[in-house]
Amino acid sequence: MKDVVSKTARDIKSMKVRGALDIAVAAAEALRNSVALGKTPKDLAKDGAKLKYARPTAVSLPNAVNYVLEVVEENKNLAKSDFKKKNLEQIDSFISEQKNSIARIAEIGSRLIEKNDTILTHCQSDTVEGIFIKAWKDGVKFDVVCTETRPRHQGYLTAKILKKNKVPVTLIIDSAVNHMLKKLEVDKVFVGADAVLANGDVINKIGTSQVAVCANSMEIELIVATQSIKFSPESVYGKVIEIEDRGSKEITSELKGVRILNPAFDVTPAHHISKIITEHGIIPPAAAYQMLRHFKYKIENE
Amino acid sequence: MKDVVSKTARDIKSMKVRGALDIAVAAAEALRNSVALGKTPKDLAKDGAKLKYARPTAVSLPNAVNYVLEVVEENKNLAKSDFKKKNLEQIDSFISEQKNSIARIAEIGSRLIEKNDTILTHCQSDTVEGIFIKAWKDGVKFDVVCTETRPRHQGYLTAKILKKNKVPVTLIIDSAVNHMLKKLEVDKVFVGADAVLANGDVINKIGTSQVAVCANSMEIELIVATQSIKFSPESVYGKVIEIEDRGSKEITSELKGVRILNPAFDVTPAHHISKIITEHGIIPPAAAYQMLRHFKYKIENE
Amino acid sequence: MKDVVSKTARDIKSMKVRGALDIAVAAAEALRNSVALGKTPKDLAKDGAKLKYARPTAVSLPNAVNYVLEVVEENKNLAKSDFKKKNLEQIDSFISEQKNSIARIAEIGSRLIEKNDTILTHCQSDTVEGIFIKAWKDGVKFDVVCTETRPRHQGYLTAKILKKNKVPVTLIIDSAVNHMLKKLEVDKVFVGADAVLANGDVINKIGTSQVAVCANSMEIELIVATQSIKFSPESVYGKVIEIEDRGSKEITSELKGVRILNPAFDVTPAHHISKIITEHGIIPPAAAYQMLRHFKYKIENE
Amino acid sequence: MKDVVSKTARDIKSMKVRGALDIAVAAAEALRNSVALGKTPKDLAKDGAKLKYARPTAVSLPNAVNYVLEVVEENKNLAKSDFKKKNLEQIDSFISEQKNSIARIAEIGSRLIEKNDTILTHCQSDTVEGIFIKAWKDGVKFDVVCTETRPRHQGYLTAKILKKNKVPVTLIIDSAVNHMLKKLEVDKVFVGADAVLANGDVINKIGTSQVAVCANSMEIELIVATQSIKFSPESVYGKVIEIEDRGSKEITSELKGVRILNPAFDVTPAHHISKIITEHGIIPPAAAYQMLRHFKYKIENE
Amino acid sequence: MKDVVSKTARDIKSMKVRGALDIAVAAAEALRNSVALGKTPKDLAKDGAKLKYARPTAVSLPNAVNYVLEVVEENKNLAKSDFKKKNLEQIDSFISEQKNSIARIAEIGSRLIEKNDTILTHCQSDTVEGIFIKAWKDGVKFDVVCTETRPRHQGYLTAKILKKNKVPVTLIIDSAVNHMLKKLEVDKVFVGADAVLANGDVINKIGTSQVAVCANSMEIELIVATQSIKFSPESVYGKVIEIEDRGSKEITSELKGVRILNPAFDVTPAHHISKIITEHGIIPPAAAYQMLRHFKYKIENE
Amino acid sequence: MKDVVSKTARDIKSMKVRGALDIAVAAAEALRNSVALGKTPKDLAKDGAKLKYARPTAVSLPNAVNYVLEVVEENKNLAKSDFKKKNLEQIDSFISEQKNSIARIAEIGSRLIEKNDTILTHCQSDTVEGIFIKAWKDGVKFDVVCTETRPRHQGYLTAKILKKNKVPVTLIIDSAVNHMLKKLEVDKVFVGADAVLANGDVINKIGTSQVAVCANSMEIELIVATQSIKFSPESVYGKVIEIEDRGSKEITSELKGVRILNPAFDVTPAHHISKIITEHGIIPPAAAYQMLRHFKYKIENE
Repeated sequence: MKDVVSKTARDIKSMKVRGALDIAVAAAEALRNSVALGKTPKDLAKDGAKLKYARPTAVSLPNAVNYVLEVVEENKNLAKSDFKKKNLEQIDSFISEQKNSIARIAEIGSRLIEKNDTILTHCQSDTVEGIFIKAWKDGVKFDVVCTETRPRHQGYLTAKILKKNKVPVTLIIDSAVNHMLKKLEVDKVFVGADAVLANGDVINKIGTSQVAVCANSMEIELIVATQSIKFSPESVYGKVIEIEDRGSKEITSELKGVRILNPAFDVTPAHHISKIITEHGIIPPAAAYQMLRHFKYKIENE
Repeated sequence: MKDVVSKTARDIKSMKVRGALDIAVAAAEALRNSVALGKTPKDLAKDGAKLKYARPTAVSLPNAVNYVLEVVEENKNLAKSDFKKKNLEQIDSFISEQKNSIARIAEIGSRLIEKNDTILTHCQSDTVEGIFIKAWKDGVKFDVVCTETRPRHQGYLTAKILKKNKVPVTLIIDSAVNHMLKKLEVDKVFVGADAVLANGDVINKIGTSQVAVCANSMEIELIVATQSIKFSPESVYGKVIEIEDRGSKEITSELKGVRILNPAFDVTPAHHISKIITEHGIIPPAAAYQMLRHFKYKIENE
Repeated sequence: MKDVVSKTARDIKSMKVRGALDIAVAAAEALRNSVALGKTPKDLAKDGAKLKYARPTAVSLPNAVNYVLEVVEENKNLAKSDFKKKNLEQIDSFISEQKNSIARIAEIGSRLIEKNDTILTHCQSDTVEGIFIKAWKDGVKFDVVCTETRPRHQGYLTAKILKKNKVPVTLIIDSAVNHMLKKLEVDKVFVGADAVLANGDVINKIGTSQVAVCANSMEIELIVATQSIKFSPESVYGKVIEIEDRGSKEITSELKGVRILNPAFDVTPAHHISKIITEHGIIPPAAAYQMLRHFKYKIENE
Repeated sequence: MKDVVSKTARDIKSMKVRGALDIAVAAAEALRNSVALGKTPKDLAKDGAKLKYARPTAVSLPNAVNYVLEVVEENKNLAKSDFKKKNLEQIDSFISEQKNSIARIAEIGSRLIEKNDTILTHCQSDTVEGIFIKAWKDGVKFDVVCTETRPRHQGYLTAKILKKNKVPVTLIIDSAVNHMLKKLEVDKVFVGADAVLANGDVINKIGTSQVAVCANSMEIELIVATQSIKFSPESVYGKVIEIEDRGSKEITSELKGVRILNPAFDVTPAHHISKIITEHGIIPPAAAYQMLRHFKYKIENE
Repeated sequence: MKDVVSKTARDIKSMKVRGALDIAVAAAEALRNSVALGKTPKDLAKDGAKLKYARPTAVSLPNAVNYVLEVVEENKNLAKSDFKKKNLEQIDSFISEQKNSIARIAEIGSRLIEKNDTILTHCQSDTVEGIFIKAWKDGVKFDVVCTETRPRHQGYLTAKILKKNKVPVTLIIDSAVNHMLKKLEVDKVFVGADAVLANGDVINKIGTSQVAVCANSMEIELIVATQSIKFSPESVYGKVIEIEDRGSKEITSELKGVRILNPAFDVTPAHHISKIITEHGIIPPAAAYQMLRHFKYKIENE
Repeated sequence: MKDVVSKTARDIKSMKVRGALDIAVAAAEALRNSVALGKTPKDLAKDGAKLKYARPTAVSLPNAVNYVLEVVEENKNLAKSDFKKKNLEQIDSFISEQKNSIARIAEIGSRLIEKNDTILTHCQSDTVEGIFIKAWKDGVKFDVVCTETRPRHQGYLTAKILKKNKVPVTLIIDSAVNHMLKKLEVDKVFVGADAVLANGDVINKIGTSQVAVCANSMEIELIVATQSIKFSPESVYGKVIEIEDRGSKEITSELKGVRILNPAFDVTPAHHISKIITEHGIIPPAAAYQMLRHFKYKIENE
């Protein structure tokens, strides 16, 4: 039914569906529906195209669509019923892999936490929290330090979630990171990611690159935890992800006439990152290019 | 009159007199009064001792007292009337030097600002603002970027003062420093100091050491502007300045049960500082030891 | 016709055909001719061997020959007419890919240039110029700084070509790079490559490694733009590319009796390079090994 | 014969069979025997499982077992006789590849040694010695500096072996490395590896990371030479290799009551390593992840 | 005679007298003449003022003038004949110290050259050449590498002078420095200085800062050899020395319409310099401030 | 009595008197005796010369002699009895200062040790042990890690002395430093010195520079504790202190025919040292030059 694809595209565009993971799952499910309806490879490609450009800045969207279209492409010479069956199987497996990705990253990442570690994190990240909670439930005793994360204080949320899960947590202001890395003898830094580029650079909440510079100056590992669906295939072809400015009001409305800049993200260069934890295992940042091959991305008009 | 010294000591203790500069001037003026009353070197030493320990953490207090006592020591063999006259002259000159120090630092520091510079500053500092305002009045066109400076937002005050003086200013959050050093092509960083240690390390508002690490990773100069009265003589003898924690309430009262650390200061190592602007001129951080000789500091029981 | 292969080998040996790209295309076209003549896999292998060692130092030559021989190997079990057809198709596609590689790199690389960028380049490179000209034609306003590039002043050629294409360009001497990276607020450095090694190290015009050290000391990105045909498969097996010394006369004939060294190239280590732009997309330097697998290189007598 | 697998497992467990290479070969030969006996894929999987956990810390053991099981998996749909034949061929090829790996690494690595090089090595490594001896036999003149390697003085063994093979060798104490890198103008450092992690970090004899920090501070290349069988597949899934403490007696029995720590290994981060020489060629450390794909590792219960 | 001062001022202004050392000596000799004529301290101060501003950018000029005026100041309470005698003695001693400074630096600096050293230098410097020639005459065997130093090729002059004095010398192009530091196993870098700033930063021929960055990246010492007369007292009070652009013609007249920048100097930060050799001995760069006290500099209107 | 001076010179030459401190005290006492005998300045100068060159490599010897001779010089215009009295007073004060220097350094340095610190030290040093024992007696709880210090195992002595004084101590091998700095979360490194050079470089037991490189790579402070008598005045005039090789037997006699190098010391560059603790207080390494002025050193024939 054509409507499902259109509706999903609208929901993604209107941000009714949001979050890298939910967008990827919604797009795959819409295409799964088209497959179930018996659409041809050609029509499926059209459905894919409709979805892919619903939100131009969503990294996970083209990844999900391309993955499904590639499955279709590989199966296109099968008999019709086999075609549908094989496609549905593989799409279901993909959807399930996405849904399990946070738990899988938690399982892998938790093994990196050692007894008596002190670990710093910045902002709020489902994957990083998953890792902390899994390790704690497995009986590892460690401490977390989290930054306030101005201007929206996502660090308060991190602190609350960890506290609720009994993980010992200390909150500090963003500018205390360098001082506290030394003072609290931080062993490792864990952060999430909004996108991973072809050369292993990571885009994440503003402040991440600063934490990285400080941690690296003391040879403290910076570890990124993120689903492979957030690796940006367009970065292979040179697309520069623009850093959104979220306006001055988030910061203060006290300073009339003063220019206020409020970038949402920054770029942490690959050479400041020691490893990336994905649901497919731990990789060096430079394996980002290889990971992207998994999604066989193609840009139109190439 | 004994009362002036006691009153001044009380005023310093009760923080009625505060700020490194005001404390130094008040102590010197109290001793000047004792000299004017014709006290003997021995009695002046007692007055000095009373003042010196009124606030144990104030770096400028022992500097001012020791300076005056040294003047007294040098003049002690003079005839009585000459003794008083010479002492008063030299004490007046010291007081005047202190009072002019901000203007003098502004004059020297403003010469370091070049046309089209973009300069970042952290927190709020009279000496740094003085430099910016002097340079602007002298017709140099440049831009200032100032950090919010959580938790007390002293950066808002910096932004307001600069705006009032027509200096173009951009405010950013503390965690955006590393990103903005590159993005806004910052040329130099200026900060003030709470204390300068014997080996050139600088104690200043929490976050300064982090700005320093980021600036240094891009070979951007970090310049400190501070009066020589803030150089810590006790650091010559190993005293470690304790970093005060200002309590959690300044940060948030939202997170019951979460440990919150709120250090007021951090230490920026000398190797991250390119120069220190004092009222006696520009020095490399390693000349701190030499500058301290100016105050001829002696710890009791040495 | 056997003659085509021999003639091509001679032309390559005599440097009548030169330049990494032209050599690769000529070798592939010679083998295409052999395929068109209906030669057997065994004879094609002999033709390949003849070509491969025509110029031992040409990185692109074994890459092109091996690629074609691998195509032949994969198709060798096909029926004779299919064998020829499939081979020709794939060889044509390879040749076309090579011929389009500069345009493709220009397309990808131009997306990395942002409004108001100042970009430094060293020596003269078709791929780098292609990127600049494409970005400029796409309407991006930016500035280029190019080095003189002693002793042969290839930088003058770069300056002329950019000027002809209206790209604003500033020329500086080679020793002014470090000063100008700061003074002109350079945002990125782009260079070409003579060869890329298995571990991501890049061999390019003498001076490149020096530009890299300076740029890295300020956290300025060094970006390499080069065809994948220049990735050295022999470096996988330990071959060290010897740096040619071009004799003293290129530098001066004024200094009789003074030893003059004039190396043509130097090696920039992978850790100083942020990304490599190839016609297959942008990769981290460490993906060089993976890129080399594309050419399935085999050295005889291994 | 079931007994061969059990016996091999016992021999590995009891350390009768030891050394990464010998363990891998023994495990592969045991499974080869099972294949020769005509066992089914299911029974072969059981045999594999028995072997795999014989020594939990041996990196090469699961690699060898998984490799064979993967061969079996790929061939499982073949006719029975073809199944056995194909399996035996591929297993034999794997075993042979392992046995030849040291010679292959020597061949590749020796090409990296240039005339008049001074090369430092730490501890004792078959692969590194192989490289030195091969280069020397090929007529390259160079010098080796080897560390004593406390507490077990493996460096004495290195010195003896090199001396026996006529390679000029100088022995120094472990703490003289930094001084001697400069004084003797060391050009390259070669070390072996006990394990290579998914992100390219290398585990080797205690002291290696220290040599690496010193070498890197002077931009001297650190080159690791190791078989791919030592790449740790479990590190992909987060396993942290525990560093064994070998007890105080190896160091001294003179210091009753003093705590003595004696870790056997340390971790050299990937960013301190310029290349890894394997029997499959030279790779950047970040290609470790890719190399691990070669062994298609799967952990039970994933 | 008033005329001598005026004439000297004119000669300095017209660059008839040039070079830091010659200017200093000429100024001191003019003031010596005034002293010999029996001028009063007040008139001597006027003569000093006339000379001091003859060439605003000459660092050595105010140093020499201030030194003499300080001598006068210290002696002003002496009887008239003693005043003249004491002044003449001290001025003669100062002039003699200046004239011997190159020989003294050669003596001190030559002791830093060790047997078999390879030493790189940039541009042409009397002090550096003096050191090389003294060491060679003392029988130390070492090698010098000198850069061409575009655009005016002062390196050719260095090469000729060294060759004439039998010191083995190799000439390279400016962009080969980083490559050759490693390739030729350079042990130390020696350069001269045009000016030394209060915080130890050194202004010297364009390219020096680049050599410094490269040398430092390999922990190779950068040693500056310069007279104390070149330490800039005005830098204590914030004066920024402007870097002169010498116009495009020195580089090429081939590139009509291309912007060519040709700065004469650059600034090497103190943290890249290991020591400064002066005629008063070897100092760390941070002792520049202390050295400047020697000249007791005062800026008018302070 | 002439004999005392001659005997002292002989005792120093024959190493009957040894150790920087004892040599300094012995030389000062011999000259004190000459003063007491009523010798003239001229004769005292002769006595000084006799002593100064008794052992050419002892840094403290010329310092002590020059200090006394300078005292004599300053007092030479006094009346004879005053001359003797003043000299004796000042020489006694100098001798007393030397004898108290270890206790004074312990007092100053102990203040730098903070609760729960983990401090690493290399080799054995009276000043460093003094600091540890003083801090422990003052009630500060901290841990020490000491290196074995091959080849003579001075670290065993350090461990024993600390253990005897109840200071908790852990011994590690020299090559475990980098690993343990991280693993044991070392906060600071303290070492002694054999000599301090004019530019702040420190000569100490082989291995110190390696500890420094590792500590600096993690931004861990390296603190040197040493008497000012060990600052080398000859280094001001370019003298390079030769590093003694102590022969192979200290290392092993097992390796016939293998070259063994055994340097006793290495040089830690000033930029790796955060502070130097002397009996005159804490200084930055760059204040070494200033400290040397204290000894007013003059080389003959200057």
